[in-house]
Amino acid sequence: MSTNTPKNTQIWLPFTQMSEITKNPPIEIKKAKGAWLYDNNNNKYLDAVASWWVSALGHNNPKIAKAIGEQAKKLDQVIFANCTHTGAQEVAKKVLNLLPNKLQKVFFSDNGSTAVEVSLKLALQYHHQTGNPQKTKIMSLNDAYHGDTIGAMSVSGTEHFFAPYKPMLFKSPKIKNWNKLEQTIIKHAHKTAAIIVEPLIQAAGGMKIYHIKHLQQLAKLCKKHNVLVIYDEIATGFGRTGTMFAMDQIGTSNLYAPDMVCLSKGLTGGTVAMSITACSNKIYKAFLGPYSANKTFFHGHSYTANPIACAASIATLDIFANQNIIKNMQKNMQYFNDCAQKFAKNLPLKNFRALGWVAAWDIDDVRKSQKQRLSPIITKTALKYGLLIRPLGNVLYFWPPITLTKTEIDFMFNTTKKVLNEIMI
Amino acid sequence: MSTNTPKNTQIWLPFTQMSEITKNPPIEIKKAKGAWLYDNNNNKYLDAVASWWVSALGHNNPKIAKAIGEQAKKLDQVIFANCTHTGAQEVAKKVLNLLPNKLQKVFFSDNGSTAVEVSLKLALQYHHQTGNPQKTKIMSLNDAYHGDTIGAMSVSGTEHFFAPYKPMLFKSPKIKNWNKLEQTIIKHAHKTAAIIVEPLIQAAGGMKIYHIKHLQQLAKLCKKHNVLVIYDEIATGFGRTGTMFAMDQIGTSNLYAPDMVCLSKGLTGGTVAMSITACSNKIYKAFLGPYSANKTFFHGHSYTANPIACAASIATLDIFANQNIIKNMQKNMQYFNDCAQKFAKNLPLKNFRALGWVAAWDIDDVRKSQKQRLSPIITKTALKYGLLIRPLGNVLYFWPPITLTKTEIDFMFNTTKKVLNEIMI
Repeated sequence: MSTNTPKNTQIWLPFTQMSEITKNPPIEIKKAKGAWLYDNNNNKYLDAVASWWVSALGHNNPKIAKAIGEQAKKLDQVIFANCTHTGAQEVAKKVLNLLPNKLQKVFFSDNGSTAVEVSLKLALQYHHQTGNPQKTKIMSLNDAYHGDTIGAMSVSGTEHFFAPYKPMLFKSPKIKNWNKLEQTIIKHAHKTAAIIVEPLIQAAGGMKIYHIKHLQQLAKLCKKHNVLVIYDEIATGFGRTGTMFAMDQIGTSNLYAPDMVCLSKGLTGGTVAMSITACSNKIYKAFLGPYSANKTFFHGHSYTANPIACAASIATLDIFANQNIIKNMQKNMQYFNDCAQKFAKNLPLKNFRALGWVAAWDIDDVRKSQKQRLSPIITKTALKYGLLIRPLGNVLYFWPPITLTKTEIDFMFNTTKKVLNEIMI
Repeated sequence: MSTNTPKNTQIWLPFTQMSEITKNPPIEIKKAKGAWLYDNNNNKYLDAVASWWVSALGHNNPKIAKAIGEQAKKLDQVIFANCTHTGAQEVAKKVLNLLPNKLQKVFFSDNGSTAVEVSLKLALQYHHQTGNPQKTKIMSLNDAYHGDTIGAMSVSGTEHFFAPYKPMLFKSPKIKNWNKLEQTIIKHAHKTAAIIVEPLIQAAGGMKIYHIKHLQQLAKLCKKHNVLVIYDEIATGFGRTGTMFAMDQIGTSNLYAPDMVCLSKGLTGGTVAMSITACSNKIYKAFLGPYSANKTFFHGHSYTANPIACAASIATLDIFANQNIIKNMQKNMQYFNDCAQKFAKNLPLKNFRALGWVAAWDIDDVRKSQKQRLSPIITKTALKYGLLIRPLGNVLYFWPPITLTKTEIDFMFNTTKKVLNEIMI
């Protein structure tokens, strides 16, 4: 299959060294269906990264598309202060029904980064208004990734991207070693408002999977030391880890449930941008009072709880419920896992790890001495064979729609094998 | 008309003291058309704030709704790295055609705050990569408002909202007095990467209108001192100030054009969230190089250049062009201005200012001694009479769709007069 060059160069692509786009031109995608993207020449590509991890149910689900089209005709947008709409109420209700009972309120925003920013601001203001204004730090994991706005970057750990922005970032004490979790928390707790983590798997941080027990310990320690726990389930939510949310595996009782959770990506079935920060009543109540007490949460975006995005979200959550997606995906997910278990054989891959619909390996880079980055070569070669994969640096991973069929799973693994064999000689 | 209480209280509304929602329950909006919002009982409300300044062309324009519905069926979303799509290319082309020639590249993101964050990060990284790593400050105007994420808040000036977040914000030197602009810039220039301003009117900062000449002087001084100029046209863009963009009134030659401009709100005709940070080739080129030089702009959001939002934007820009909106709105805009000029007579309003489709007054608060906030009382009373207005603290303003008819203009002014007379006695 041939790639086709975009018609103009007026666009600056995200996370892309633009000097390389002549060598690695982006594919112009015209339409999509399920797990497949189609270019102008009707070549098709299996979207094995679910388009940056958003298309949980695959592309262009007709039910979601219909909901979007109908909502656009009825109520496109309304200011979400002094006004509300049933769509937002439906989303709030459906999402809270899926979350631990501890989470009782929903604050809408537009993307993962803003959902994280909301959680960080809520954390500081919560302590400010409950007698602990000295609690102004947010702790985070080593190698964390929570987004690209200044607040979200400040609690991320991929520092090598960040050198120019350092003067704009605030400092976040890091949890570097789970075995020293208690000491680390005790050391910083007196000044710490919250800890933010991606539960069970650090995705952009390198597909690093870690044990449930650490999060259970984290929950207990944070409760003891009056530190809020924020779960960033932007990547992990909506079936990715094998359950609806990663937190379902950790325990949803009040003992283990987080104080806040950030959701986005799959929230609209991968169709339009929207996000949610859900929080406990304890947090919500700390913001109530007469206006003059200055406890209001002064945060909002123009398109907060956009009715079209809410319609997409309702349709998505209905599909999850009515089609029993989580239960029905288990068989193919197991097949995906079986294939992944066997995949590295005779390939230059090591450190296999897998969770739900994620599988990852470190590439044992035999070309290291040639100083060639393998990631773009792998992507380019895979596109030639009709597969979209994008290694994270040296980490090869699969993160397909959770509705993938066995035939598509076979295609994904077989094609990747062909690619690796072709370029790793 | 009666208001109707929302069915659940699972939602935390933005910029709202939630203890007051029983007293001031949000209206549940069911549908919209043009300048009008309709509740469940078919009561209608003129949206005189264009739903947080986004619905430039009014609500539910059939052309935009159709474009959204069709795109949702064809290509909902695709990762915007390694892939692209014609929608994004069309938007980039159409937007750049409307902007000064100096602006040559488009970086997409999801909302106003992220568009600003992108501009701030580009500014620091630009200087970092062109031999001036000491240029790490962003200057901004007193009382500026550029959004609610940590970076955007850091360059904003409404500090009274910000006390709990102060430990997370970076410092931004302020331009407090236009008459001392040169001294202020000279004082900070050696360490300053960029200055960010809302051109001609500080909107959320209190509808403060200022003269073109200050921005012309700013452009010249910044050029001289190697400081980038960022125009935040998120609120001012798409016809609001009487021209397509506020910058059109300042001068679009290379002498006066900004180095970057942030767009959102009206970009999709007020239908779904999307934003753009446009920049000059000078900036773009400073990010080119071999990957190993680490000059890549590592920023992106999952839904960057979302195809559905791009379809909405193309339809919006086509309407502006084909219906010659800017030219054809001038007559009604003049009528709006005439009405506004005369409006304060016999009303407790002072400090009238107006620009394009914006008119504002400070409320001469006769109730001050009673310590009642007038803003929510005005909003509540206006809703009773079928009008949505939301004073910014003590600032009464109109910011309607730019397609408002004379009859609607009359209704807006007459109803507001009735409201003020009723509550200001």
